[in-house]
Amino acid sequence: MATRVAIMGATGYTALELIKILLRHPQVEIVAVTSRQETSPISSIHPSLTGRLDLPLQNLSPAEISARAECVFGCLPHGASAEVIPDILRGGARVVDFSADYRLASADVYEEWYGHKHPDPDRLGVVPYGLPELFRDRIVGADLVANPGCYPTPVILALSPLLKAGSISAEDIIVDSKSGVSGAGRSPKLTTHFPECNESVSAYGVGRHRHVPEIDRILTEFGGRSTSIIFTPHLIPMDRGILSTAYSRPQGNVSEEAILDCLREFYKDEPFVQVVDHLPGTKDTLGSNFCHITARVVRGRVVTISCIDNLVKGAAGAAVQNFNLMFGYPETTAL
Amino acid sequence: MATRVAIMGATGYTALELIKILLRHPQVEIVAVTSRQETSPISSIHPSLTGRLDLPLQNLSPAEISARAECVFGCLPHGASAEVIPDILRGGARVVDFSADYRLASADVYEEWYGHKHPDPDRLGVVPYGLPELFRDRIVGADLVANPGCYPTPVILALSPLLKAGSISAEDIIVDSKSGVSGAGRSPKLTTHFPECNESVSAYGVGRHRHVPEIDRILTEFGGRSTSIIFTPHLIPMDRGILSTAYSRPQGNVSEEAILDCLREFYKDEPFVQVVDHLPGTKDTLGSNFCHITARVVRGRVVTISCIDNLVKGAAGAAVQNFNLMFGYPETTAL
Amino acid sequence: MATRVAIMGATGYTALELIKILLRHPQVEIVAVTSRQETSPISSIHPSLTGRLDLPLQNLSPAEISARAECVFGCLPHGASAEVIPDILRGGARVVDFSADYRLASADVYEEWYGHKHPDPDRLGVVPYGLPELFRDRIVGADLVANPGCYPTPVILALSPLLKAGSISAEDIIVDSKSGVSGAGRSPKLTTHFPECNESVSAYGVGRHRHVPEIDRILTEFGGRSTSIIFTPHLIPMDRGILSTAYSRPQGNVSEEAILDCLREFYKDEPFVQVVDHLPGTKDTLGSNFCHITARVVRGRVVTISCIDNLVKGAAGAAVQNFNLMFGYPETTAL
Amino acid sequence: MATRVAIMGATGYTALELIKILLRHPQVEIVAVTSRQETSPISSIHPSLTGRLDLPLQNLSPAEISARAECVFGCLPHGASAEVIPDILRGGARVVDFSADYRLASADVYEEWYGHKHPDPDRLGVVPYGLPELFRDRIVGADLVANPGCYPTPVILALSPLLKAGSISAEDIIVDSKSGVSGAGRSPKLTTHFPECNESVSAYGVGRHRHVPEIDRILTEFGGRSTSIIFTPHLIPMDRGILSTAYSRPQGNVSEEAILDCLREFYKDEPFVQVVDHLPGTKDTLGSNFCHITARVVRGRVVTISCIDNLVKGAAGAAVQNFNLMFGYPETTAL
Repeated sequence: MATRVAIMGATGYTALELIKILLRHPQVEIVAVTSRQETSPISSIHPSLTGRLDLPLQNLSPAEISARAECVFGCLPHGASAEVIPDILRGGARVVDFSADYRLASADVYEEWYGHKHPDPDRLGVVPYGLPELFRDRIVGADLVANPGCYPTPVILALSPLLKAGSISAEDIIVDSKSGVSGAGRSPKLTTHFPECNESVSAYGVGRHRHVPEIDRILTEFGGRSTSIIFTPHLIPMDRGILSTAYSRPQGNVSEEAILDCLREFYKDEPFVQVVDHLPGTKDTLGSNFCHITARVVRGRVVTISCIDNLVKGAAGAAVQNFNLMFGYPETTAL
Repeated sequence: MATRVAIMGATGYTALELIKILLRHPQVEIVAVTSRQETSPISSIHPSLTGRLDLPLQNLSPAEISARAECVFGCLPHGASAEVIPDILRGGARVVDFSADYRLASADVYEEWYGHKHPDPDRLGVVPYGLPELFRDRIVGADLVANPGCYPTPVILALSPLLKAGSISAEDIIVDSKSGVSGAGRSPKLTTHFPECNESVSAYGVGRHRHVPEIDRILTEFGGRSTSIIFTPHLIPMDRGILSTAYSRPQGNVSEEAILDCLREFYKDEPFVQVVDHLPGTKDTLGSNFCHITARVVRGRVVTISCIDNLVKGAAGAAVQNFNLMFGYPETTAL
Repeated sequence: MATRVAIMGATGYTALELIKILLRHPQVEIVAVTSRQETSPISSIHPSLTGRLDLPLQNLSPAEISARAECVFGCLPHGASAEVIPDILRGGARVVDFSADYRLASADVYEEWYGHKHPDPDRLGVVPYGLPELFRDRIVGADLVANPGCYPTPVILALSPLLKAGSISAEDIIVDSKSGVSGAGRSPKLTTHFPECNESVSAYGVGRHRHVPEIDRILTEFGGRSTSIIFTPHLIPMDRGILSTAYSRPQGNVSEEAILDCLREFYKDEPFVQVVDHLPGTKDTLGSNFCHITARVVRGRVVTISCIDNLVKGAAGAAVQNFNLMFGYPETTAL
Repeated sequence: MATRVAIMGATGYTALELIKILLRHPQVEIVAVTSRQETSPISSIHPSLTGRLDLPLQNLSPAEISARAECVFGCLPHGASAEVIPDILRGGARVVDFSADYRLASADVYEEWYGHKHPDPDRLGVVPYGLPELFRDRIVGADLVANPGCYPTPVILALSPLLKAGSISAEDIIVDSKSGVSGAGRSPKLTTHFPECNESVSAYGVGRHRHVPEIDRILTEFGGRSTSIIFTPHLIPMDRGILSTAYSRPQGNVSEEAILDCLREFYKDEPFVQVVDHLPGTKDTLGSNFCHITARVVRGRVVTISCIDNLVKGAAGAAVQNFNLMFGYPETTAL
């Protein structure tokens, strides 16, 4: 007996990746794909779905969606997402939300970084953050899960165990991240026009990227000490992948081996996190739900390097991992 | 004593490449860069010009342009170009036109392929076609030159000598071309959005590309026999470069060596066309005004392979080569 | 009860892709991965398998392989493959052979194109060619299947139905193909060194590529008329994907719609071939076992355009499709 | 009267770029190109030089080289370079050395990082470091100049003025750099094999890259305080370009505007360094000898971002800039 799912806002890249994963899931039936603008067959927007998913895009109300689906994957922009999710939950469906709307704990911080009042402030801080490696217990059986941002995932996975163990200081953490262009979404812009971003690397949003408060929040909560990172994202001429190089200070006299052991111990039973000895590249995780992590100690600094596929572990794969936990399926199904 | 030049429609990629070449030209002074929309410094549109060209974009009338410049490089879209060029010529400036407006010989053919009446039909067929390797005599000292299209250049350079010599038939010529993305211009579109066209190759405009009548015209005129090519352009995930693979029928019993000799003989004194024995790649001509050509005979078909940098020999480099001929400078200056 | 499989020659890209597909197959257990040089864990060669497949590379004899596995996927180079496959079959295992060794019907043609005598000539022409869309009946239950070459697959799928229906002539077929670099294998060479082939497109092996006799053979056998194609492969700066643009002559007065209808009718029940109206790009088939095909009629020529992922439908996906048919599993399992 | 120059070790990418620049130099005649292995025409190694430079590669002794050329550009590997340069100097030619052999001041540091004794230790610390923006006076008229490494150039240009002015601390500087693949040279390796490094980003040589002591030395000498950076280079899937993101600590209460003003003031008369307000991308400097720099202050850290074309300002362009200074030509000639 399959679980009926809907994808809300199905024209983007994360939705496409999600559909491809769900089509492999033996306990899932996709019953609806929605869009506020498009009404064509979904394969006319995503030609790679031709012959694989034969559904029209529809502009459905929250009530209509929750009447059809038991689980809704929300791929709407921030702001729009928290406008409709309360109604979907009220209608009886559960939700994995890809937007940033339920990732922060504070309505004030949300307003500061996103520039508008949060439409559903009471749920902030209550909704589980969908990183099973840190918060599995809260995700199991949940009605609503906030799927993590793409940049936060490899940063949090690399640093959280070290912060919690006290191996590194919570002060003065620098995160230098490199992302493929699919992270910028499917709307054409000059910065993502091929002849502009191909054969080029550039930083953007230095110090202002909205994933900063998300990383700060989770590192602080999980690590137990107030953390404020310095974060620089870079645009890399490739489709997918994020590599994060983080520079932190060891606490006391911690060796490289001790750092690696701390990570290995923490993740020893995790199906999707691999602590490796070599220096990983994003291609090692391309198309998979894995995160690869390593660490080095250089001149008294801990350098952690972690990578994921931003559309899988950084979005759609994590969402299916969360879905599996919410609905009681084996966590790795379809992944 | 430098020649004063203006670039009309200076926000695109061909204009940028042109400016970079002109900045190396010892007999050129750039006196104006125009745009119908932008009024900012040109370096704010093209950051690579920072510290190299300090001019504001201006919306100048044809009269204003011809008052300032002795030569105008027209980088306007087709249609718009032939609207203003007559006034510029009347004002006393000479023009190298990058648009398609003066490349065809017939107003009817123009209307058929471009969908609107030609604004200046009397000049059609009179304006020299700016491929010096075929039409140098007509370009020397000209007031207006029609700069060739990017696709036509390597096709015409590979096939014209063979057609003229009667080495290949004018019937049944198939041209399969591959172009980098800069050929699509600087306006963001879904088809040139990085995550769409990167890591993909596709055909477009099959049988309908507007360079077809241009290639037909020049091959017919230069070769002396009516020629109608079958043309398929493809979009390749790279910034620059066009490679054209053309399939034609040998006339009589022509060997591979005879084909290569015919090409070598035709181009033996040309500074920018190299007939090579190996199979060239577009990178061999990247950033230069060269065209590399080779040929093979396969199972009774002549396969010619030719490549250029679409922004240089396919646009800005050819324009400067034409400019040099028009104004009496050594043809290779700055190239 | 899973089928035990071995991958012979597991260090290359097709083997890696095969392993990733097999790891999703519910009726497969990978019991051995072999290499003649390497003895390290397979994840040290393919880091993306870390935590997913924990097997050492081993140098096993044919007898050892057939003792362990019920099905062997052979990823050896041509020549080497037919040296060991007879012994593996004798040992009782069945084989899907990725090499070219069993794709041709004639030992003479093999020797002409591959430069050495065929080690196992008696099986030539008897082994089924592993394109289920044309030869499904012969593949079902077979002991040995010759997995098709990457270039032949989209060419044969586009042209075979038209040849068989008599919609196009068998004479004068030109195939211009474009492939990503993974098709060149995993051994570093100057031509596949990143700064050489990135940002460049070039033709190679013009008229001499070893896939020519394979395409000729299958088109001739399936179409029923002797066919000799003119074939030009091109190297495209992308990891994966093949797009083939083929130019053929219509027989009689055939319309574009009739060509498309012929293809649609032929493939109407095929799970992995989609005849589309739009012009497909290789990205539409990236990572999937699909082939997308369309056609246009241009100035009295039929232009067919077809694309696949060379590592999936062009290699590992086709192999699993064949495996499913050989062992009685649903044909689309894991694909 | 042109200066006769030779390129020693002319088969690599920096030599190719150098030749292209020198071909535009009105006061240069290239008289020899050497190689220890190759004896073919240089255009057979670098097809883009076809029709542009007609010289054979030759295996010349230092005496033969200095007999022919007034200036030798040395593109040999480290170690090999300092073996022959003393003899070339003795023969009367001057040298711009691309290798690392004369960039460090101490034979001990050289041996520690390069693993062998320095062949010519007496010249260490005496040879000028070829960054005209810092050391122009020492380069003018010099006999031997150590051309800077590609990574050090944008790092040193961004940080030196701030260190010298006391705007940032010499402690705790982290440099995260991203480079295109041409920096790895022209010899094929698995790490630079297209299907390995395309669509991937990875760190390498973390804490161990040989450019570390070079950066340390120059920052220390120019800034006046001992500096030891933490350096992580990353490989980016593009041909050319380096972007360096450096994290340093402001001294006292320094504003973002003060940091930018310090840089602007320092470089106000420099032809090739542009301090910009926007966040630059490597494409802004592609193919040019420019370095673009900006800075931000984020949560009490100074983030400087600087970029160059690694083959131009990071190698061949800098070499010609140094050559111009050594021989009394205008510094920007051919650049």
